[in-house]
Amino acid sequence: MKVAIQGELGSFSHTAARQLAPRMTVLPCAVSRDAFAALKSGRAQAAAIPIENSLAGSVAEHFDLMLAHDFWIEAELRLRIEHNLIAARGVKFAEVKRVLSHPVALDQCRKFFQEHRQVRSEAFYDTAGSVKHVVENNLRDTAAIAARKAAQQYGATILRSGLEDNKRNFTRFFLIRKSRRIAPGANKTSIAFAVKNISGALFKALSVFALRDISLSKIESRPVPGRPWEYVFYADLLCGREMRAEKALNHLAEISEFVKVLGIYKAAK
Amino acid sequence: MKVAIQGELGSFSHTAARQLAPRMTVLPCAVSRDAFAALKSGRAQAAAIPIENSLAGSVAEHFDLMLAHDFWIEAELRLRIEHNLIAARGVKFAEVKRVLSHPVALDQCRKFFQEHRQVRSEAFYDTAGSVKHVVENNLRDTAAIAARKAAQQYGATILRSGLEDNKRNFTRFFLIRKSRRIAPGANKTSIAFAVKNISGALFKALSVFALRDISLSKIESRPVPGRPWEYVFYADLLCGREMRAEKALNHLAEISEFVKVLGIYKAAK
Repeated sequence: MKVAIQGELGSFSHTAARQLAPRMTVLPCAVSRDAFAALKSGRAQAAAIPIENSLAGSVAEHFDLMLAHDFWIEAELRLRIEHNLIAARGVKFAEVKRVLSHPVALDQCRKFFQEHRQVRSEAFYDTAGSVKHVVENNLRDTAAIAARKAAQQYGATILRSGLEDNKRNFTRFFLIRKSRRIAPGANKTSIAFAVKNISGALFKALSVFALRDISLSKIESRPVPGRPWEYVFYADLLCGREMRAEKALNHLAEISEFVKVLGIYKAAK
Repeated sequence: MKVAIQGELGSFSHTAARQLAPRMTVLPCAVSRDAFAALKSGRAQAAAIPIENSLAGSVAEHFDLMLAHDFWIEAELRLRIEHNLIAARGVKFAEVKRVLSHPVALDQCRKFFQEHRQVRSEAFYDTAGSVKHVVENNLRDTAAIAARKAAQQYGATILRSGLEDNKRNFTRFFLIRKSRRIAPGANKTSIAFAVKNISGALFKALSVFALRDISLSKIESRPVPGRPWEYVFYADLLCGREMRAEKALNHLAEISEFVKVLGIYKAAK
């Protein structure tokens, strides 16, 4: 049984996959589309994907991919994100002139770069991938920013830890599958919907939940590709499989262009 | 009089700045924070910033910066985005092995890279900046993806045009200033607000507009830095300076943690 992730072994997604599905092996994919394709083709039985970071916001591409595929959110996880400066063995901090990492990780370590003006940052496709690159090429003037696990994975050295500007840095991950399974105790529902282009449409859409005392923990709009200034809304509802939720979703479908349930699952603690 | 932009001369922001403020000169800044700092310090009298692309969605960093500063949106522009493959003079298409550009631009030209497997893409900090880099270093195996204007700016050659996957590709720009000016005919209002963490809070917030027949053309949530899973909402209202707008905003303030008006301006055509 395999879980597809975007990124290399040792990435935050790798850690998330292990926590979400402890007995599975991980299938690393270069880009998110490949992870979704692996699940679609059956090369993987599940995928672990980051959906939202508490500082950087939503991973927009993953919302788009969830809408384009008929996959199902089975579980949710919150992972604390800690950034470390990692280099090949024997490299000293004073030797480092360049630091590679994913642009989001670099952006979350602004203070480090302000305090160390001799070091320049450079965008790389993946956090753990940047550690792999530094180690495989035995770079002596270049370090990477990634999870502690990436240093273990590639036999590298942690030069500095806790590089992130803000310690309250968390990422939400989803475990997604092809089949629809609803875990016992499921208390959260993720949906996508598009409202008709009429005045007060979103207000009416939200009324189906407000009138039934269903809380939203999140709502977000994304543009519809090829239809400028039209939006799909993504919402997380604090309800499971109960009757009022079913009625609210039926009511929403009456007044929307479409409604798609992305998953019903147990909210992460 | 100067208009700060993020990016180099020849960028889409440069074109936007010229259309928004024809008689001004442009002050190129490496990163968005520098453009905002230039406006704050008085080195620039205005800034032209992209706020939303019809395919890629909102420029989240610019929403965060608008919230952190007390600037004012004076005008809005919609610019059609066309991507071109641009190389140093004399370079032929068959010689190109590598293409540099801003990650968003690369992502909008997926078909080109699927059809030309011998060419690999590499992220760069700016579209026009990648043309500048290719020309200044007279690279013969590397091209850039940018606006037509960038080729003119740096004396480069356009090898291919219309590289974008989707022709309905537009970006909204704002002209922002320190002082609050409202143009005659202003018919759009941008606001930021945070709702109290109670059930149905967003529904109640939207009711202040729905009950006064004020339409929203957009609403979007962004996480509050350092307060995981709390959100600021950004909304565009289709109203200007009229009485019902003022009453709606006062009503919103009653039931929100805060309301900030970011600008009242004429909607772009």
